[in-house]
Amino acid sequence: MTLAHSLSFPDSLRDGPTVGDLGEFEVIRVITEQAGSSLNGDDAAVLRHASPNSRAVVTTDMLVAGRHFQLDWSTPEQIGQKAIVQNFADIEAMGARPVAALLAISAPTHTPVEFVRGLARGMNQRLEEYSAELVGGDITSGDSLVIAVTAIGQLGGSLPELTLGRARPGQTLVAHGKIGYSAAGLALLQHFGPDNVPEHLRPLVDAHCAPVLTPGRGMVARAAGATAMTDNSDGLIVDLNQMAMKSGVRIDVDSSSISPDELLSEAASVLGTDAWRWILSGGEDHTLLSTTFGDAPSGFRTIGQVTKTRHEDLVTVDKKTPAFSDGWRSF
Amino acid sequence: MTLAHSLSFPDSLRDGPTVGDLGEFEVIRVITEQAGSSLNGDDAAVLRHASPNSRAVVTTDMLVAGRHFQLDWSTPEQIGQKAIVQNFADIEAMGARPVAALLAISAPTHTPVEFVRGLARGMNQRLEEYSAELVGGDITSGDSLVIAVTAIGQLGGSLPELTLGRARPGQTLVAHGKIGYSAAGLALLQHFGPDNVPEHLRPLVDAHCAPVLTPGRGMVARAAGATAMTDNSDGLIVDLNQMAMKSGVRIDVDSSSISPDELLSEAASVLGTDAWRWILSGGEDHTLLSTTFGDAPSGFRTIGQVTKTRHEDLVTVDKKTPAFSDGWRSF
Repeated sequence: MTLAHSLSFPDSLRDGPTVGDLGEFEVIRVITEQAGSSLNGDDAAVLRHASPNSRAVVTTDMLVAGRHFQLDWSTPEQIGQKAIVQNFADIEAMGARPVAALLAISAPTHTPVEFVRGLARGMNQRLEEYSAELVGGDITSGDSLVIAVTAIGQLGGSLPELTLGRARPGQTLVAHGKIGYSAAGLALLQHFGPDNVPEHLRPLVDAHCAPVLTPGRGMVARAAGATAMTDNSDGLIVDLNQMAMKSGVRIDVDSSSISPDELLSEAASVLGTDAWRWILSGGEDHTLLSTTFGDAPSGFRTIGQVTKTRHEDLVTVDKKTPAFSDGWRSF
Repeated sequence: MTLAHSLSFPDSLRDGPTVGDLGEFEVIRVITEQAGSSLNGDDAAVLRHASPNSRAVVTTDMLVAGRHFQLDWSTPEQIGQKAIVQNFADIEAMGARPVAALLAISAPTHTPVEFVRGLARGMNQRLEEYSAELVGGDITSGDSLVIAVTAIGQLGGSLPELTLGRARPGQTLVAHGKIGYSAAGLALLQHFGPDNVPEHLRPLVDAHCAPVLTPGRGMVARAAGATAMTDNSDGLIVDLNQMAMKSGVRIDVDSSSISPDELLSEAASVLGTDAWRWILSGGEDHTLLSTTFGDAPSGFRTIGQVTKTRHEDLVTVDKKTPAFSDGWRSF
């Protein structure tokens, strides 16, 4: 039996029609009811005028059911929220402002309309935090449930964008958001299943299923003088390694600044594992990681330094080889 | 057996490594070798400055193997070409200029790297015609082969965009490009299989597997005073019906201007079918359909009139109900 045939939706979604019952136009109507935009409904969406001299910023991510999300672990709303956050984090990581999203779905005909409705509702919840809109998309049938979200942002002003290649020795490394929570939540779900995670550890599961990103931090950091930025999507060490490599620098992380908090320690103790694995190689937190010569921008905390110290590793923790350094693998 | 498991690649692609063998980073390198851009390689792509006062235009389409393309009918290059053309046609249909694309792929681990290389090469062939670039994307494993392409365009100048809702009584309906060729090619493939289509009918198969769109026709029409535009993607009558509905008008097509040419007539005769079905309900030609008060813009020909005549159908052919009016169904 393949994943395609074993794709089953939770009972809570199965009352009601399927996308095959409703057909394309009605399903699109369900989506636009939840996440509407006056820019939607033509061959393509023409965005509103941006501030003068601004540039468009674009990124896309594909989520496959059974691989990037589990239908019995996450609600459709959470899947929608996560899809927006992970894409908007990439826009923020350039120092830009997310303004719009596109949604393409391939779904088996037996997909409940309620799944699509929840997905769109969840997307809209996060879109609204940004005053952004779902401006278009595509829906088709297919054996697998696959969601592709594209985010569009605007980069205004004359400061350069925040790239992976602009970290400079002497800068401090700063972070906004939790690190390791998503991986801990995933481990808890793998161990306990969706219904039996100890109540006091639920925040970690929530961080995995629906990560939160405070809007505007990328713009704030750019305005405050940050030069390099990325988000913690594939794993802290992996993502910092990309930055170090593209910038031609070394990055040293201060372990005391990212050490497990009470919740992570408790989860690690319950599962009999090392919380540092989640912190250093977990990813999917979509925490913003940035470098700057000045003080940590508002909302950020210092977690390390950019150096030119020779070391066999591009990224070190307390000047030593990280205990864990693997990350997400697509294949 | 499900489609996922029956997904098999032609022998010609199977010499060499799979995407699972190479891993994500190497596969991305293969793609960027074929379709490179200096804008690629960061969390998101920051596009170049557009002309002052211009707006970003975005659209996305998802292609599922076995549904939107067949691996034994189309080469990877053709699939890439078609993915760009169908997305860029939507940008053109707003009167805008396509400038960039994003590519997201979900692929089984046994997908030959050669497929991905060919796909990227085909995309780049069409991108180059537009001086456009593949600026980013995402690749992941999944049971199905699913491709999502996003197109980004720029709409400059002060003329409004070309929408479905701006057709006006008294205008002429104009078209750029072949109508019915793609559907005829599909019918030939379904009947003869990929290797046995009569040689003189191959141009119809090519039009199906790799439709061609002359760059810039949307901008030309907008500059020449066109007001409404769409592309023939779901079927001529279906697409014109959308335009008529959103504009609150009737559209009458002049049959003599779209009647089967020698090639379509020959194919219909060989298959014992009516070529008008392909013309009226075929779709996928990505022909531009537009309305204008003036003469047909350069590259366009007149194929009908926008009216306010009362008729039970929004779209008529020679003022009568069309012989065929169905179109593509996603579910």
